[in-house]
Amino acid sequence: MSWIDVRSDTVTHPTPAMRAVMQAAEVGDDVYGDDPTTAELERASAERLGKEAALFVPSGTFGNQLALFTHCQQGDEVIAGEDSHIVWHEVGAAAVIAGVNLRPIPAPKGVLSPEAIKARIRPSGDIHLPRTALICVENAYSSGHVVSLDDMRAVWETAQDAGLPVHLDGARVFNAAAHLQVPAREIAQYADSAMFCLSKGLAAPIGSMLVGSRDFIEIARKKRKLMGGGLRQVGVLAAPGLLALNEMSARLVDDHLNAQTLARLVAEIPGVVVDQQALDINMVFLRFNRAVDGNALVEAMAEQGVKANPPDQGLMRLVTHWQVGAEQVQKVAAALRSALEQQQ
Amino acid sequence: MSWIDVRSDTVTHPTPAMRAVMQAAEVGDDVYGDDPTTAELERASAERLGKEAALFVPSGTFGNQLALFTHCQQGDEVIAGEDSHIVWHEVGAAAVIAGVNLRPIPAPKGVLSPEAIKARIRPSGDIHLPRTALICVENAYSSGHVVSLDDMRAVWETAQDAGLPVHLDGARVFNAAAHLQVPAREIAQYADSAMFCLSKGLAAPIGSMLVGSRDFIEIARKKRKLMGGGLRQVGVLAAPGLLALNEMSARLVDDHLNAQTLARLVAEIPGVVVDQQALDINMVFLRFNRAVDGNALVEAMAEQGVKANPPDQGLMRLVTHWQVGAEQVQKVAAALRSALEQQQ
Amino acid sequence: MSWIDVRSDTVTHPTPAMRAVMQAAEVGDDVYGDDPTTAELERASAERLGKEAALFVPSGTFGNQLALFTHCQQGDEVIAGEDSHIVWHEVGAAAVIAGVNLRPIPAPKGVLSPEAIKARIRPSGDIHLPRTALICVENAYSSGHVVSLDDMRAVWETAQDAGLPVHLDGARVFNAAAHLQVPAREIAQYADSAMFCLSKGLAAPIGSMLVGSRDFIEIARKKRKLMGGGLRQVGVLAAPGLLALNEMSARLVDDHLNAQTLARLVAEIPGVVVDQQALDINMVFLRFNRAVDGNALVEAMAEQGVKANPPDQGLMRLVTHWQVGAEQVQKVAAALRSALEQQQ
Amino acid sequence: MSWIDVRSDTVTHPTPAMRAVMQAAEVGDDVYGDDPTTAELERASAERLGKEAALFVPSGTFGNQLALFTHCQQGDEVIAGEDSHIVWHEVGAAAVIAGVNLRPIPAPKGVLSPEAIKARIRPSGDIHLPRTALICVENAYSSGHVVSLDDMRAVWETAQDAGLPVHLDGARVFNAAAHLQVPAREIAQYADSAMFCLSKGLAAPIGSMLVGSRDFIEIARKKRKLMGGGLRQVGVLAAPGLLALNEMSARLVDDHLNAQTLARLVAEIPGVVVDQQALDINMVFLRFNRAVDGNALVEAMAEQGVKANPPDQGLMRLVTHWQVGAEQVQKVAAALRSALEQQQ
Repeated sequence: MSWIDVRSDTVTHPTPAMRAVMQAAEVGDDVYGDDPTTAELERASAERLGKEAALFVPSGTFGNQLALFTHCQQGDEVIAGEDSHIVWHEVGAAAVIAGVNLRPIPAPKGVLSPEAIKARIRPSGDIHLPRTALICVENAYSSGHVVSLDDMRAVWETAQDAGLPVHLDGARVFNAAAHLQVPAREIAQYADSAMFCLSKGLAAPIGSMLVGSRDFIEIARKKRKLMGGGLRQVGVLAAPGLLALNEMSARLVDDHLNAQTLARLVAEIPGVVVDQQALDINMVFLRFNRAVDGNALVEAMAEQGVKANPPDQGLMRLVTHWQVGAEQVQKVAAALRSALEQQQ
Repeated sequence: MSWIDVRSDTVTHPTPAMRAVMQAAEVGDDVYGDDPTTAELERASAERLGKEAALFVPSGTFGNQLALFTHCQQGDEVIAGEDSHIVWHEVGAAAVIAGVNLRPIPAPKGVLSPEAIKARIRPSGDIHLPRTALICVENAYSSGHVVSLDDMRAVWETAQDAGLPVHLDGARVFNAAAHLQVPAREIAQYADSAMFCLSKGLAAPIGSMLVGSRDFIEIARKKRKLMGGGLRQVGVLAAPGLLALNEMSARLVDDHLNAQTLARLVAEIPGVVVDQQALDINMVFLRFNRAVDGNALVEAMAEQGVKANPPDQGLMRLVTHWQVGAEQVQKVAAALRSALEQQQ
Repeated sequence: MSWIDVRSDTVTHPTPAMRAVMQAAEVGDDVYGDDPTTAELERASAERLGKEAALFVPSGTFGNQLALFTHCQQGDEVIAGEDSHIVWHEVGAAAVIAGVNLRPIPAPKGVLSPEAIKARIRPSGDIHLPRTALICVENAYSSGHVVSLDDMRAVWETAQDAGLPVHLDGARVFNAAAHLQVPAREIAQYADSAMFCLSKGLAAPIGSMLVGSRDFIEIARKKRKLMGGGLRQVGVLAAPGLLALNEMSARLVDDHLNAQTLARLVAEIPGVVVDQQALDINMVFLRFNRAVDGNALVEAMAEQGVKANPPDQGLMRLVTHWQVGAEQVQKVAAALRSALEQQQ
Repeated sequence: MSWIDVRSDTVTHPTPAMRAVMQAAEVGDDVYGDDPTTAELERASAERLGKEAALFVPSGTFGNQLALFTHCQQGDEVIAGEDSHIVWHEVGAAAVIAGVNLRPIPAPKGVLSPEAIKARIRPSGDIHLPRTALICVENAYSSGHVVSLDDMRAVWETAQDAGLPVHLDGARVFNAAAHLQVPAREIAQYADSAMFCLSKGLAAPIGSMLVGSRDFIEIARKKRKLMGGGLRQVGVLAAPGLLALNEMSARLVDDHLNAQTLARLVAEIPGVVVDQQALDINMVFLRFNRAVDGNALVEAMAEQGVKANPPDQGLMRLVTHWQVGAEQVQKVAAALRSALEQQQ
């Protein structure tokens, strides 16, 4: 059976074109700086995000943690949204590798308000207080929301006033850019460094990019080696990465449209309540207005060829990507409808 | 000039009786376990808090951080009140020494609600999530509030249900006990470990105690050495510490009464608004209902022999202790009144 | 120009067969445990090393540091050879991630003597001493030497007597196995965990494997996520990794023979002194018996199509691999001879 | 029974004069910088060691670890003698708090040779290597040896050439100074920072001093707070500390003479072999030329009122201090003789 997998966009398979370039990629030992394909990907990534330099890293978590490790000193404090990926889904790495304290603040729909930030920036000169060293924003936010350019700029200006750098967890920054209909660099202009994933919606098999100033990336390069991320013939991943960056980023708008279609379809199913406020990108969030056995639901969908994650605290997420197109979303909606009917 | 110092109760001088016992103390090398006065203090401290064992530590911060270091593994997550001392005033030590992530949650008047705690306890089995390892409560809370036994028990039961230990930052647990009119052990029964300060209101010059199970304290003893807290002839501090524990704890109720008197007096000063909800212990919190130059205010009070800290974000704190008695609070109120009049 | 690259075996390009399987690899999201090719590589790796389980990691440094992080508690001490890769070439990661102290001891030709180990194992029960938690051996050693099975067993028995685990840095364990003419598992039987590289002589583009008991690997899997090594469609790397493991490991003996030929050829060059004691694997170490300008030497060799690293503290290393065969070693020797003549 | 305690000089009781000044000490809250006695001790300590500034710390381990934490960045490497206190007796703190890697090198009689240091200083610019950040010397060395000014200068010049700072673990620097018959500042001139203990031979009950440049101490003051070493009415310890510094340091020469007398006496006991090369300070090291039951030996000595530590790996250490004078060493020798005779 060929699955339709809406658990996440992390499940995306590389496209046939990616597989072809992987085979043909010109490679070298990237620890020696000898890999031409990686060099090209780093150059292109920096350019797309409007930064001086870039670095290939094995994963988004790796890139975010490397950013903390590079921006901060041990014991510093980092302000971040309380439901952001760095706070929530990176296994507590911040205290282990960078040795920093996260200071989570409320971030409804991913928006950090200047007031909430200012209330948590530590005044200098008090011996009891750690140094606030960094502000992290995430765009698109894990909740399926895109933060507007105005809200990005407000954070940036608050940080500038306080003399603090900003890191952008842009795992899905190209989804945010597609939603805002701007180049990604217009989002990243409000950050000193940014991480984005070549995998996820962009469909490369492995890899993320960290971008920033030349000095920042030079320090990060050495710390990447310390963290075990100095790889060898990276070209085999950089080649599909270039396709992800150059070609796949342009089609994310289709994923968003398909998500909206899917939202419309499942909203028609009795018992389903779609969060209409969280439809910015390739994700549909829904609840049920009656008791539903999540695991049974997922099993019933699987029997119809659809892989989905069960609801988490009542919230179910369906994700579109290049392998879940206009035709597939019909099948997903049908599978959900049928699975729900089995529980009546 | 003999100062009246209301900046904090950390400024308390040792009493004459303490100075006398310091001179006479029987001592030994406590790293060898040879100091009989320290052994007696540890025995008495454990007994007063209702635990099996206790350990002398150089400071409250040291004791709290040692508790994190002993309860947790590197990378774990610790739930604590967002304005608690561990989150706010320990220089970011949690990420440096224990290597743990703090997860601050709202704690109005120091109360952690079971719902807020449960929302932040990580489910096990998800590879993305750090392990929740500990819940920290603080009583009395830095804000001048005492947490009730019911609220303590609610946290404890939530923790028990989740299989988690509780650490009590009881820097001022004897103030809390005085307010609640219960022995301190009735508060500490809702925690696996507790730290309390011999300094602050109890007036010992230096030192805090960490209490817990025999196994916990045995591990903490070695980690205390790692942190540089293995001291030698500790008896010279343990002797006044015993007076602090056995005698000074009984007179904290006077400090509370004096704080209430002080609150009444300053509330009569035009322009002063006292927080009547934060009068549980030896602290008075007040705001001004007109613009006040905090530094000038403090200088004017100093000219009248009163040392006070300037308002922090508009909030001024006055603290009573054994050197700020019934007579002194009159002078403090008078000095504040006069200093404010100079700004009219 | 098509280079002959003898700087290291880390520079190896993937073979045409590897490129083909990369394109065709069946993949899935390995964080979800969905990647069948990776599952097969992990199964095969465990089996080849004689362990219960295995885990793909992005690099050798990652695998070694993950082993320290999994075996040890923060503050523990790890005994390792003073010139081993973990001590020498991993950017000081041990103190950052695992938070452990390395205790380097002499290891001539990679051999840790039981006496040297015993002298550094900390007795338990002394409050001043960290816990010795792990012994690390490296085979083949970075110096080009292979440690005999007898010497491996002696370390193992010493560790067993002391109740300590052993980790094998087997970045080139298949080179060691080829030299000793035994299956790799006969070497790995003297270790609780082992790391080996799919890159280097085995020519996979990226990746290493960590093997050990099922419990060990389960813990390591979560800590790998913390370190940013949870990757997605790992199958594209696992597919060439399987070829590396199953096919390339069998031809390392050719690299060793070619290294011996190369050693013989360069030993005939006036001024060159080959270390005849360090010819166990695919490396030739040589010195010059007269003053040589290392950078000029390397430039002159490059003009003849040979990439070499300049001597480090007088010692020059030439490395053979699948792209440096019988024909290429002739050219390398000729290039070195010619380059040296230019300096006369 | 009044014990004669030769286990260590850490067991020294405060003198009657110290007890008197402790009682009378003028104190304040040292976290606020209000303690005049501590300020005086810090001024006097800096002056005695020839540095700009000083800081009171709770213990020698605390002071050494604070020095590492202040000089270094996480992941750096620190060169130190392989049997030095920092490497051997500080519970592995270096990797936990400062997050640094110790690089132990041979240090016969405490002397770090410039060659051994140079061989371990990492070249900059190689991405595989941690940064060498600090060289630690210890004088007097734990082995009972004093390092000469020439040897101190040689380390210093090596460090200067490499652009590296030097930290002096001078726990017993006044013993070293007494042996060399120079002011302590002549030793400390060859270090950027130094720690010395007020306890041990100087007999203060608790405390050590960290000295260095004004900038260094300012940073260290904040990191001391993080480590839990911000204490309150430190004057009660600073007052005896001033006596330790100003008066007790002058009488260490008596301890050394008494140690020499003790060495002569015990050398006459059949079966005892004194290490005549390790008599620089207040310690006598001896071995037995026949089998001796260490624990029985120590018990037999205890019955005669002498507390001694059993031999460690065959080496027994006897330590003199102000409570072990000319009369007591006779009794110690007699007790050892008698205890040995009981084992014949």
